[in-house]
Amino acid sequence: MKKIEVGPRNFMYPMPTTLVGAIVAGKPNYITIAHVGVMKYATLSVSLHKRHHTNAGIKESGTFSVNLPSARMVKETDYCGLVSGQDVDKAALFETFYGKLKTAPMIRECPVNMECKVIQTLDLGTHEIFIGDIVETYCSEECLTPGKGEDLTRVDPILFSTSGARYFRLGEQFALAWNAGKELNAKDVTMNPPPPAAKD
Amino acid sequence: MKKIEVGPRNFMYPMPTTLVGAIVAGKPNYITIAHVGVMKYATLSVSLHKRHHTNAGIKESGTFSVNLPSARMVKETDYCGLVSGQDVDKAALFETFYGKLKTAPMIRECPVNMECKVIQTLDLGTHEIFIGDIVETYCSEECLTPGKGEDLTRVDPILFSTSGARYFRLGEQFALAWNAGKELNAKDVTMNPPPPAAKD
Repeated sequence: MKKIEVGPRNFMYPMPTTLVGAIVAGKPNYITIAHVGVMKYATLSVSLHKRHHTNAGIKESGTFSVNLPSARMVKETDYCGLVSGQDVDKAALFETFYGKLKTAPMIRECPVNMECKVIQTLDLGTHEIFIGDIVETYCSEECLTPGKGEDLTRVDPILFSTSGARYFRLGEQFALAWNAGKELNAKDVTMNPPPPAAKD
Repeated sequence: MKKIEVGPRNFMYPMPTTLVGAIVAGKPNYITIAHVGVMKYATLSVSLHKRHHTNAGIKESGTFSVNLPSARMVKETDYCGLVSGQDVDKAALFETFYGKLKTAPMIRECPVNMECKVIQTLDLGTHEIFIGDIVETYCSEECLTPGKGEDLTRVDPILFSTSGARYFRLGEQFALAWNAGKELNAKDVTMNPPPPAAKD
């Protein structure tokens, strides 16, 4: 398999597209962000360029929300990435509700909402990374399978790829995690020669 | 849309399943991780529970790789999450190659490989988060569309959901980013009343 060096490019996609909510200058605001990471089970990171309107709001309240829109909300979701809350009241597109934190606005139309409390902020030059513990999660009833938690196919998330600036849908389930690899077992695995670095 | 509180649960899925590579105790090792975040364009975060064998290797060299396996590699990918490098030489499943950093082993069979240099490490109690700048990215020729960068559909990534421990495929492209929202414009947006928190 021939490899081509393409420079230091990020191909870590697709990522779920989210709407990150915060109160900014006294009003709820939502920004489209696909660069949300999982730090550990109930701790998320949100990466925001410092030029965004949202950053000051998150810093002021120490809270934010991560809302997962469905594919049917793609126009509104994309729009919230095209315009700034400095110019436009983006919250008017949605019904906003509040949860336990009271300062993290959430979007009722999104099937999943996670309200988060900032535990750490990283300064990475052009970007600020807000790391937050999930305090409570709100699910639309129709996305929950009784006794089995949420059903991702019912959430119908918007999957973003930076290459070609595309939105994809979730495809079919094709295997089970912590399961598909069971048929390979240790006897198929033999020792590898040491890597070049180990010889240096 | 009725909302149900489900506790502080993480529904930030699907996430691309990766194989994170490092030299550990002198040998290349790979671990299955879906909790890789984008910090900024060419900076990634990798979340690893402290019990893992890989952490010491990343700390020793200050480098790691993020390899994106294709759906056809699901057995090998899942296997690398089932067994520890302390017990099994998981690198024997793949052809390992090295790039510019020399100490970040990468998997030739994976269509995308990103080699990273650690710039910061976060201690989040049970987990360590390794934040790394991408130094170089390697793509298999067949995943690149001439002049258009990588084609995610050709990468055919393994998308992980913690709920039900499922692996999904990428679905169809259905919209363009920074485009789908253009037909909504500011005149459709009116001012919202202030949030409850702003009245407190």
